[in-house]
Amino acid sequence: MISVIILGSGNVAKHMYTALGAQKSIEVVQCYNRKGILLNPEQDSKIITQDLNDLVKVDVYILAVSDDAIEEISSKLPFNDCLVVHTSGSVPLKTIKNNNRRGVFYPLQTFSKDKVVDFSKIPFCLEAEEEKDLVLLNKLASSLSEKIYQISSEQRNILHISAVFVNNFTNYLFSVGNDICEEHKVPFEILHPLIQETAKKITNINPDQAQTGPAIRNDITTIDRHLHILNNTQQKELYQTLTKAIQSKHGKKL
Amino acid sequence: MISVIILGSGNVAKHMYTALGAQKSIEVVQCYNRKGILLNPEQDSKIITQDLNDLVKVDVYILAVSDDAIEEISSKLPFNDCLVVHTSGSVPLKTIKNNNRRGVFYPLQTFSKDKVVDFSKIPFCLEAEEEKDLVLLNKLASSLSEKIYQISSEQRNILHISAVFVNNFTNYLFSVGNDICEEHKVPFEILHPLIQETAKKITNINPDQAQTGPAIRNDITTIDRHLHILNNTQQKELYQTLTKAIQSKHGKKL
Repeated sequence: MISVIILGSGNVAKHMYTALGAQKSIEVVQCYNRKGILLNPEQDSKIITQDLNDLVKVDVYILAVSDDAIEEISSKLPFNDCLVVHTSGSVPLKTIKNNNRRGVFYPLQTFSKDKVVDFSKIPFCLEAEEEKDLVLLNKLASSLSEKIYQISSEQRNILHISAVFVNNFTNYLFSVGNDICEEHKVPFEILHPLIQETAKKITNINPDQAQTGPAIRNDITTIDRHLHILNNTQQKELYQTLTKAIQSKHGKKL
Repeated sequence: MISVIILGSGNVAKHMYTALGAQKSIEVVQCYNRKGILLNPEQDSKIITQDLNDLVKVDVYILAVSDDAIEEISSKLPFNDCLVVHTSGSVPLKTIKNNNRRGVFYPLQTFSKDKVVDFSKIPFCLEAEEEKDLVLLNKLASSLSEKIYQISSEQRNILHISAVFVNNFTNYLFSVGNDICEEHKVPFEILHPLIQETAKKITNINPDQAQTGPAIRNDITTIDRHLHILNNTQQKELYQTLTKAIQSKHGKKL
């Protein structure tokens, strides 16, 4: 049995509470957050505390708080030599105060408030200073997911940058596609299956091999027609920038 | 029973042959392509022709050829007043020569050579000049898919531009993410589930609501750290362009 305390009340804290709480091999002993919020409507309110001094001794303290709060909360913990981990993609392990044993327990996924999360497919990126802590985090992560990676703070940074491209920027392109459809009263849902397939394709083949479209074909007629139809300057510039980027990448290779 | 001839030998022609050939209500009577290629290893070679003059009379002639070839092949067809449709996202209906009845039978999806296609989830965008032809195309599409839309050539153009953003450009962002990971020897596969979830999310909520990340949070510390780590000029510029675009879009709304 691994005993755990979850600190924080955001999406990650909530989803992690629900997932860990469902495991027989894990006991979520307490939850801390400043406002005393329940992480789940069915949670026993007695295990919620708003006072860090109330925290009891457990195997792992999970700081599922915002990036900015990790340093401060870790420095206020009223105990030493316990395993304290954060769940952030971009904060270095060393941001946690060094009076405790430090680690990272980072589920690489985008969490929505009201959507049930299937942790079994979520990659966990683990880091710890001591071998025994890594073993424990591995055990904890294994109870939730099949995909566990030992990742250094530097590697995690790289994953985070890459995630900005494949998640945040990609979502922005979806929003541009949506805007174009809305402006011309075409249902954006017609593109949903294409979007799913685009995402699925790169799990089987390298994205460079999966590249299609007017840019890589250097189909100037189509590119010009598209630029002519786009009347929003920002959309037009983005179309040109990305078309050039694709051509410069694949041109070099040819 | 709807009788069909498929012209072309690319991915769309092949997948369409396999899908239509499996329907009891449809008979693929002949296939035409210049090289006399089989569209499927199990196809009877007798139904393949390399000569347009051999084509028999059927209900629908499907021009599943490249965009550039639609005009030429349609003008060489040795018959009049038959229903001739193309399968392109960007070519206007009127590109087909007007001695025949014209239409569009456009499956909006990205087709890979060796990947079996489940047509049932693929949106079909239909267009025809005559009502009876639209009815027939509707019947043909319904045998393959649940999702059928009547879309004008102008609307199809809009969908095509939007598809460039959500498919071609998105795939390019995946390739950038892959490059960043490869350069730093981090397995890109760790990001696969995030990519799937990003694509799935916008089928439930508007992409504007789904926007997350350092750009929309105006998290300057993280943005600066990312720009500092990116040493490829093109990646850096793209990061800046898309960050600004997200901020300008959402800044205006706040």
